[in-house]
Amino acid sequence: MHAIGVDIGGTKIAAGVVDEAGTILAQTRRQTEPDHAASIDAAIADVYAELSASYEIGAIGLAAAGFVSADRSGVLFAPNIAWRDYPLRDNVARLIGDKVDIVVENDANAAGWAEFRFGAARDVDDMLTLTIGTGLGGAIVSNGELVRGAWGVASEIGHMRVVPGGHYCGCGHEGCWEQYASGSALVRDAQAAVLRDPGRAARLLELAGGSADKLSGPHVTTAAQEGDELAIELLAELGRWIGEGAASATALLDPALIVVGGGVAAAGELLLAPARNGFASQLSGRGHRPEAAIVVAAMGNDAGMVGAADLARL
Amino acid sequence: MHAIGVDIGGTKIAAGVVDEAGTILAQTRRQTEPDHAASIDAAIADVYAELSASYEIGAIGLAAAGFVSADRSGVLFAPNIAWRDYPLRDNVARLIGDKVDIVVENDANAAGWAEFRFGAARDVDDMLTLTIGTGLGGAIVSNGELVRGAWGVASEIGHMRVVPGGHYCGCGHEGCWEQYASGSALVRDAQAAVLRDPGRAARLLELAGGSADKLSGPHVTTAAQEGDELAIELLAELGRWIGEGAASATALLDPALIVVGGGVAAAGELLLAPARNGFASQLSGRGHRPEAAIVVAAMGNDAGMVGAADLARL
Amino acid sequence: MHAIGVDIGGTKIAAGVVDEAGTILAQTRRQTEPDHAASIDAAIADVYAELSASYEIGAIGLAAAGFVSADRSGVLFAPNIAWRDYPLRDNVARLIGDKVDIVVENDANAAGWAEFRFGAARDVDDMLTLTIGTGLGGAIVSNGELVRGAWGVASEIGHMRVVPGGHYCGCGHEGCWEQYASGSALVRDAQAAVLRDPGRAARLLELAGGSADKLSGPHVTTAAQEGDELAIELLAELGRWIGEGAASATALLDPALIVVGGGVAAAGELLLAPARNGFASQLSGRGHRPEAAIVVAAMGNDAGMVGAADLARL
Amino acid sequence: MHAIGVDIGGTKIAAGVVDEAGTILAQTRRQTEPDHAASIDAAIADVYAELSASYEIGAIGLAAAGFVSADRSGVLFAPNIAWRDYPLRDNVARLIGDKVDIVVENDANAAGWAEFRFGAARDVDDMLTLTIGTGLGGAIVSNGELVRGAWGVASEIGHMRVVPGGHYCGCGHEGCWEQYASGSALVRDAQAAVLRDPGRAARLLELAGGSADKLSGPHVTTAAQEGDELAIELLAELGRWIGEGAASATALLDPALIVVGGGVAAAGELLLAPARNGFASQLSGRGHRPEAAIVVAAMGNDAGMVGAADLARL
Repeated sequence: MHAIGVDIGGTKIAAGVVDEAGTILAQTRRQTEPDHAASIDAAIADVYAELSASYEIGAIGLAAAGFVSADRSGVLFAPNIAWRDYPLRDNVARLIGDKVDIVVENDANAAGWAEFRFGAARDVDDMLTLTIGTGLGGAIVSNGELVRGAWGVASEIGHMRVVPGGHYCGCGHEGCWEQYASGSALVRDAQAAVLRDPGRAARLLELAGGSADKLSGPHVTTAAQEGDELAIELLAELGRWIGEGAASATALLDPALIVVGGGVAAAGELLLAPARNGFASQLSGRGHRPEAAIVVAAMGNDAGMVGAADLARL
Repeated sequence: MHAIGVDIGGTKIAAGVVDEAGTILAQTRRQTEPDHAASIDAAIADVYAELSASYEIGAIGLAAAGFVSADRSGVLFAPNIAWRDYPLRDNVARLIGDKVDIVVENDANAAGWAEFRFGAARDVDDMLTLTIGTGLGGAIVSNGELVRGAWGVASEIGHMRVVPGGHYCGCGHEGCWEQYASGSALVRDAQAAVLRDPGRAARLLELAGGSADKLSGPHVTTAAQEGDELAIELLAELGRWIGEGAASATALLDPALIVVGGGVAAAGELLLAPARNGFASQLSGRGHRPEAAIVVAAMGNDAGMVGAADLARL
Repeated sequence: MHAIGVDIGGTKIAAGVVDEAGTILAQTRRQTEPDHAASIDAAIADVYAELSASYEIGAIGLAAAGFVSADRSGVLFAPNIAWRDYPLRDNVARLIGDKVDIVVENDANAAGWAEFRFGAARDVDDMLTLTIGTGLGGAIVSNGELVRGAWGVASEIGHMRVVPGGHYCGCGHEGCWEQYASGSALVRDAQAAVLRDPGRAARLLELAGGSADKLSGPHVTTAAQEGDELAIELLAELGRWIGEGAASATALLDPALIVVGGGVAAAGELLLAPARNGFASQLSGRGHRPEAAIVVAAMGNDAGMVGAADLARL
Repeated sequence: MHAIGVDIGGTKIAAGVVDEAGTILAQTRRQTEPDHAASIDAAIADVYAELSASYEIGAIGLAAAGFVSADRSGVLFAPNIAWRDYPLRDNVARLIGDKVDIVVENDANAAGWAEFRFGAARDVDDMLTLTIGTGLGGAIVSNGELVRGAWGVASEIGHMRVVPGGHYCGCGHEGCWEQYASGSALVRDAQAAVLRDPGRAARLLELAGGSADKLSGPHVTTAAQEGDELAIELLAELGRWIGEGAASATALLDPALIVVGGGVAAAGELLLAPARNGFASQLSGRGHRPEAAIVVAAMGNDAGMVGAADLARL
């Protein structure tokens, strides 16, 4: 059965027809307004109309950045879109006429599921994905099933506290893992390094056009790939936090594989090698247990779309 | 079907015949030698002989304090018993003649499973148990299934790191949750308070016969129940760490219920109220999500036996 | 001998004629431009001209927010004014014709010195002042002498690290004390509380005109004085950090008195009581040593002016 | 004037005649009983009798491990000797007949003073010494004067808190610097490494005769000097904590020199290079200020004796 997967971002949606092997047969996009939830409903109905003209569609999966309700029908809360207890499924169903099953999934869960079914984790039953962009999202698969939790909001792994009294987080707490293991953390650490030691940060500043405010994660990756010492250290620090936090998560979950996706994964071994070291240095019971591998995600930016489509078929 | 559950401690085993409703129909015990693994095999065979004389037994569940192999046949490593990659199931099977299925389970998993099936968590599908004695063991149930992990060593929740550079742990790392949320932590904190402020610790010292070395968790609970301010603070600090760590675990797992068992649970609300406050203060997304309740375990000391028996039947 | 003390802020200077008892006999002010260092030189010369018309002046003390050189002639670095290795003394001397001695002092040192000579600490020989405004400045007096350090930059106490991996600081590091014990920290913590728990933060939000971005320290103090629970907790948390950090500083310095000044001191006992508790809870060797009192500063906003004038006379 | 310096340890005292250039002209020792304070008084009188037979003695300085009273006449509290508000000066004076001035000094202060007057810091006016043995003692000299504090107990630098919720300390608190930067910390970290990773710890275990309990600081230094990777890492971690804590102390004190003495200083550059890196990485305002050098102490084990003698002459 073909399903449509829709990746709902703040200002646009990307939708695709996905077959049972996880292959995207067709894709389309629409602009949306984050403050105007109905514009998203309409855009979804619109892409359905477009894509269902050429393909027989059995289900629609909607990947949403927010807390998804346990029955997968709506969004309890979203940080960047005007959704509060929003009945996304029913609103879309009304617009398209109840023709197919519609399910809502958390976007990081959807992306992780794609890795589990078709990507880097397709050969294991227990895995953890870390989707590291601006923030840090997670997906947990245990014994072949997605861990959704009692109310659908499991895998908010970026808000595991790793430093009491640590960095402020947008969630109102301190010391959340995503404040140490995310693209935002990388950028802030790079900016702090510019303040502390402008001499060593010269190449980073140059890449940022001379302004620390303009520094981005890709600037750090580029500089590191050129051999810039500071940039290599910054990625190593990010990797260390990824690995150390993953060791804590592993104490709970014992995954066979930890998949690192999202923008920062582009740094490859400059990030992964320190992540593996951090993981090994903090894994409890090491030497007395088999050990998860840490690998880069395989599904790229389409992971959310593919995973949402696949979850909608279940 | 009746099953035998065996709770294997360092110096003794406790075994019982458990029916499908979780009721213990008969019990027995044996002394064992922790440094002599064969003595444990023999004791298990012996209790089987005794109990199977009066009951028809369909399975045996062995609850072991250690890393249990993924196929539930043996123990990879145990901190307090001389087991290293030890084929516990086959050794016992040889002694008793292969008459029944034998499965090995981690003791905290077994105890948690008993709470899930017959105890405090029998009405939910997603739960976390914290068994707080000398250390801190956990059990995770997700969507009605025990989370064992890829290699059987999930739920080692006491080794989630909560303070980088924090208290030394017996596992060789620093800052493990069980060094803040366990009976051992309570005792050490009480001893530190004696050093810091002997005046306020007078009642605790008295209960310990005048020697800080003799202080125990029950002394603190007794003093707190009498209204001793320092003891109340010590339990509140323990509770705070239980709740704050539980908030991190909840970010990953979203349980409907968090069940607190083990010796310290005897402190009741003196512990639970601060645990709930700590949980609420650190739960990410609070107000935008339903919230797990924190309750005391219902199955008492037999939880491991009952849970092991029940898991052996699955 | 009369001396002029000048308190140099980002956008204005305040100057006064101070007698040997620390009394301000006359005052005046000028606007300045922080990005234009010469405008500050000129303004100082100008206030000297004005004040010396009516008083015989023996010395000028300049209180500057920055790293002051060991010979007290200039500013090595200032975070908010365009001074880099700036010869402030010589520039001003050139403008006024070398008639009087001019010395430059760090502003927090000057304010602390005023407390030592004429204010809350006038009866002790060893003290520590904490000037808590946007940031956290300190002054140390040991055996009756101001501790300036080898290069004039001692007492930068706000940059003692109190949490490894803690809050980012404007200095480029993490976990500096001033990120936990300052008006800025209070405001950020209040804003985080709004995010976490808008219900409890209702009164704070109201005081801020409905916008968390507009929250200020005085809003928190006002709400706390009205009895608002959250505001009281926020001040208590700030006080706790003041006291705990002061305990660390006391391990090094053993002051007789710790004087808390700056804007937040307006909160009085709502701040001081928790500060004293935090101090007592963390002071090493407590019970085996006399213990510093923690009191509010007595010299108010003129402390910097008075202290700079007095130090110029030495 | 010649003075006698006495270094009072737990089970023995070492005394020497010291001239004004800091040279030891004669030495002697006595056994003492730490639980029997009078045995120490008597031993001091006895060495005075012996040494004053050959030298004209003008003063006696007694270096004591404990809180020394502000008037330098006695010991408020000692962790390892049975001194509580003990009038050491008067007791000794009574035994020897009031012939010379006697002053009591904290042992780490005495050792630091020797470095300041005759050793590694003889060319500076502002310094900090760190005496790193089992614990971490400090001495602060500001503008040429020893910082004693209001009640004589300044420079207890080992009890500055560096990790909230960190390692337990013998003082009853958590996270004291000496639990991260001392020989004891080194040994515990080495033992933890043995637990975590016995393979890498093979050489350390061998040096300790196969028993982690027997591991000592010198074993780690020896292994590191042989090139053992784990031992090098352990010293680097110790050095990192020395440097990072020193950066916090420098925010307060701005010393020209930080002198590292005590047993661990034997590790030389294996310790000092990481200490300098840690210091540089955490020093606030770096690049805008001159920077303290970190060097090894020059006075060796006699520093306490020499410093106490010299301080007695002041």
